Amino acid sequence: MIKELITRNRSYRRFDESVKISTEQLLKWIELASLSASGRNAQPLKYAVITNENLCSKIFPFLGWAGYLSNWKGPAEGERPVAYIAVIKDRSISENHYCDDGIAMQSILLGAVEDGFGGCMIGSVNKSKVARLLKLEEQHELLWIIALGKPAEEVVLEQVRNNDIKYWRDEAGVHHVPKRSVTELVLKTE
Amino acid sequence: MIKELITRNRSYRRFDESVKISTEQLLKWIELASLSASGRNAQPLKYAVITNENLCSKIFPFLGWAGYLSNWKGPAEGERPVAYIAVIKDRSISENHYCDDGIAMQSILLGAVEDGFGGCMIGSVNKSKVARLLKLEEQHELLWIIALGKPAEEVVLEQVRNNDIKYWRDEAGVHHVPKRSVTELVLKTE
Repeated sequence: MIKELITRNRSYRRFDESVKISTEQLLKWIELASLSASGRNAQPLKYAVITNENLCSKIFPFLGWAGYLSNWKGPAEGERPVAYIAVIKDRSISENHYCDDGIAMQSILLGAVEDGFGGCMIGSVNKSKVARLLKLEEQHELLWIIALGKPAEEVVLEQVRNNDIKYWRDEAGVHHVPKRSVTELVLKTE
Repeated sequence: MIKELITRNRSYRRFDESVKISTEQLLKWIELASLSASGRNAQPLKYAVITNENLCSKIFPFLGWAGYLSNWKGPAEGERPVAYIAVIKDRSISENHYCDDGIAMQSILLGAVEDGFGGCMIGSVNKSKVARLLKLEEQHELLWIIALGKPAEEVVLEQVRNNDIKYWRDEAGVHHVPKRSVTELVLKTE
């Protein structure tokens, strides 16, 4: 049931680094993106798939982690992502990718969660540095990095209180994410 | 299985207008969006839910349908959407909604498809006119309209040939959507 899968699909930032993900598996999730909607069906999004440990460790320092957890520098050794999918716009196809990136990343992550993995869409990326690491050509604009692995943290949803949407981590290391209620989100029904 | 659901989740533009969708059902799909990821967890997207026949018929003329089908003016009477979800950015929360709209609409439509319905994300909207119909306030920016109903058309995926991504409709009325292969989409694996 899709609600169960969407609920399990949290933004995971700590992983069991001993559990690897195969390239084949990652391509299967990208296939889900390829089957999803695209504005004007242009399909300008391309992907780079990274599982090589050395390259993963080079990418890692260029990623920003969990902005609201100001005392946390990101996952420690042993709990870092074991794979990345770079989401790239091919500007030779279209300058406008509408919201294809959100559609595609949601499909990819739902696939990952179904298979017992998980990840996080990261927009806080030193894009020029990572583009250089990936040897991207001029027409290829890096949009997002999806960090992936076997989740090794508990993430729970809770209701937003006092309009405070900042996620937080409790003493037991559980990550809490306040979500707005449907009542708040729906301006009108007519 | 998520692949089966994503594959069935096509952009449907013709519906069986005799099959209605309840507001309760639509709110259930919006709940799926509320449980999905949001950039910085700001959750600036709001929704208007429209099932009223009179309002639906007022919105309809302000929607653009299937740009590549130049001889088709959109669904005829009897095959029009029975409900709309307007996706709205609340600029008092954030001016930047990242790709939240794609994430949210994918979640909503996967919910609709699971329940035997379907729809289409429409960006070609006369936004000022529809915003007026919905009596949106200044801070509420209309982003997308999702048209929804019980699909009454067959949509098939096929491989892109000669880089032609334009969807087309055959003599039997089947809607064909060329999709790029995973091989084309993946720039590199390393």
